[in-house]
Amino acid sequence: MKAANTSIAKTMIVMGQEARGAARVLARLDSEQKTSALHAAANAIRQAAGDILQANAQDMQKARQNGLSASFLDRLKLDQARIEAMAAGVDRIAALDDPIGQSDQNWTRPNGLRIARVRTPIGVIGMIYESRPNVTADAGAICFKAGNAVILRGGADGFHSSFAIATAFRAGLQSAGVPANAVQLVPSTDRAAVGAILAGLEGTIDLLIPRGGKSLIARVQREARVPVLGHLEGLCHVYVHEHADADKARAIVLNAKMRRTGICGAAETLLVDQSCAVNLLPLIAADLRAAGCVLRGCERACAVFADMQMASEEDWGTEYLDAILSVRVVDGVDAAMAHIEKYGSAHTECIITENVAAAERFLAEVDSAIVLHNASTQYADGAEFGFGAEIGIATGKLHARGPVGAAQLTSYHYVVRGDGQIRP
Amino acid sequence: MKAANTSIAKTMIVMGQEARGAARVLARLDSEQKTSALHAAANAIRQAAGDILQANAQDMQKARQNGLSASFLDRLKLDQARIEAMAAGVDRIAALDDPIGQSDQNWTRPNGLRIARVRTPIGVIGMIYESRPNVTADAGAICFKAGNAVILRGGADGFHSSFAIATAFRAGLQSAGVPANAVQLVPSTDRAAVGAILAGLEGTIDLLIPRGGKSLIARVQREARVPVLGHLEGLCHVYVHEHADADKARAIVLNAKMRRTGICGAAETLLVDQSCAVNLLPLIAADLRAAGCVLRGCERACAVFADMQMASEEDWGTEYLDAILSVRVVDGVDAAMAHIEKYGSAHTECIITENVAAAERFLAEVDSAIVLHNASTQYADGAEFGFGAEIGIATGKLHARGPVGAAQLTSYHYVVRGDGQIRP
Repeated sequence: MKAANTSIAKTMIVMGQEARGAARVLARLDSEQKTSALHAAANAIRQAAGDILQANAQDMQKARQNGLSASFLDRLKLDQARIEAMAAGVDRIAALDDPIGQSDQNWTRPNGLRIARVRTPIGVIGMIYESRPNVTADAGAICFKAGNAVILRGGADGFHSSFAIATAFRAGLQSAGVPANAVQLVPSTDRAAVGAILAGLEGTIDLLIPRGGKSLIARVQREARVPVLGHLEGLCHVYVHEHADADKARAIVLNAKMRRTGICGAAETLLVDQSCAVNLLPLIAADLRAAGCVLRGCERACAVFADMQMASEEDWGTEYLDAILSVRVVDGVDAAMAHIEKYGSAHTECIITENVAAAERFLAEVDSAIVLHNASTQYADGAEFGFGAEIGIATGKLHARGPVGAAQLTSYHYVVRGDGQIRP
Repeated sequence: MKAANTSIAKTMIVMGQEARGAARVLARLDSEQKTSALHAAANAIRQAAGDILQANAQDMQKARQNGLSASFLDRLKLDQARIEAMAAGVDRIAALDDPIGQSDQNWTRPNGLRIARVRTPIGVIGMIYESRPNVTADAGAICFKAGNAVILRGGADGFHSSFAIATAFRAGLQSAGVPANAVQLVPSTDRAAVGAILAGLEGTIDLLIPRGGKSLIARVQREARVPVLGHLEGLCHVYVHEHADADKARAIVLNAKMRRTGICGAAETLLVDQSCAVNLLPLIAADLRAAGCVLRGCERACAVFADMQMASEEDWGTEYLDAILSVRVVDGVDAAMAHIEKYGSAHTECIITENVAAAERFLAEVDSAIVLHNASTQYADGAEFGFGAEIGIATGKLHARGPVGAAQLTSYHYVVRGDGQIRP
């Protein structure tokens, strides 16, 4: 074991150096070169469909032997249609505007200096993610689009699939004349590789993007020696204000909880104003029950809708990612915001109301990455925001917050054009 | 000692909690409240001039006893004029536009959702800085302007001065009805306080801004458990291209090196193209020598200007912060950029040329926080950029880069306004 760890540690250091070298080349590619390289990667994935399906069959067989859940197997499974969707996703990212070189701020100083803030790549990104093979292509393409090299470390259960996808992706890049090492996948399921990435690979990793369960997040918080763009849990709230429109409230709550229960933007807690709980909560609750949702309510919620379990203190802090919703009756917007501040994860929260003043207070004072008025929390998604694609939803307050697309994976520098100015 | 450490550790945890509480209030203040609170703080500093001067006399006496340098004593010393300048600086920050609540991006999705990216405070900032009392007022005011609470830890040699300034600042805030704990100064010179801040004060610090010498930077890299906005050294380069205008080149190099040698934007290395070295370098070098600058050159540089020492390999990587300049003759823009990539600190670099293509290549490919064409590196300054004030120059690539003013000490969140949209 010791020998293996040493060997993977050495491999990782070399990967870091290769990534750094590739990043230097990437930073200087023009938009057309990046676009055509990504289209080449997409086509290489299509051409490698046979290899990818074979690798996926290996992963699926092992996952079944390990007794993994049906929903897990579904996320892991690939077929021709999913491979085509993955390749089409890479083509879509290829077609996005190039964020690099764009200038969002320009001004001229009284002394004639012209200053522009221009987007630049970040450099080398380390990405640790769950056993979802399609993320290999998505994350590789988004990082590449923004001129960054990426070192990918996917979940062990999808290793063969991810490796086959990454191999095709890299062959595509190479065929387009750009460094294959722009996208590297750790060629091992050894957990020591994660530790090496968290330690920064001797200073070669500029930014770490961890995605995964609580044990990964805890390990990142303990061990990471590099800047982290965190994607924590989405304990999203929907607050039905006393002046909510009943139809909107029913439709939004049902959609926010039940459209897809396993995504981070799914609602986990419903807050309902006392003054409308008696009339509105039974209707909302009946919709949810009819759709197969289990309800866990506070005392006041249970009092107005019988088919509800009592919620425990733990429920308010639980991201179910399942057809379960905690329900609390509150006394107005202040109480709702206090509940969100205490239990929320600063991901996405929604207020449903026809009262503009209440909505604006909620939107201004709730400090979550995304705050919505009269719309489903399931809109917390880069594609829905118009970013074309996303690598996740950042819940920290530094660098990027909310959906992280290619533009969010950039830095900037200031370009100053003068005509001989010297400082007095 | 152990007891003292335990006691300061406890004090620090309480400071973190107080800062968190203050940050919650600050995030909800409107622009007028923040502006008038900062004017009150400025006036309180003016009124406390007597106390501040007395405290400063204590620091000065001890610094003289400790044999600190004349330039150190000059940075430490306060008088009526400097106190007025400090108060006026706070007034200027008060008068800046409020970055909080501003929206720099707004768009509407095809489904009618209106999305705005709105600036929000970061929360609690920890700031560790050198023994410069005026930074206490500056940093307090800039953090406050952006709605952040700040915990300040100034250098031990300026402790009494900083404490008197912070006391006045806090009294001013309190008189304006805002929490004094928005601005706190660590009430101890115990170095254990720095360790406590680096550890994050039990999760209450959102961002750490360290300023100081190499030993602090090394300690931060080793110990910090919170995100860091780094202000590293400024090993700035001026590159005189073969098509440089001779007069601009002479004026800019002299200004970049000698206007003030102790600031991070001062030039430390001059690169000169071989093709213009024979004609131009002797003129530039003579200007510098006449101004009292010591020159350390490569072999080719020494060959064209006799009054120059031989540079060692170490010189290329040294930030002198003094009247010393290393000089290297290079073969064109690629060689100049390679030198900068190898030895630079990604702070500020300048190209002097009348050749637009060469300038644009340099501006696009040199990955430093600030790149200039035909202007002095000493423009690397928040006030010169029009930011009103700055807390330093960030040299990392994450969150903020270049001059860090109030607007750079913010995060953002997405506000989404709908009319009942549910996701298909």
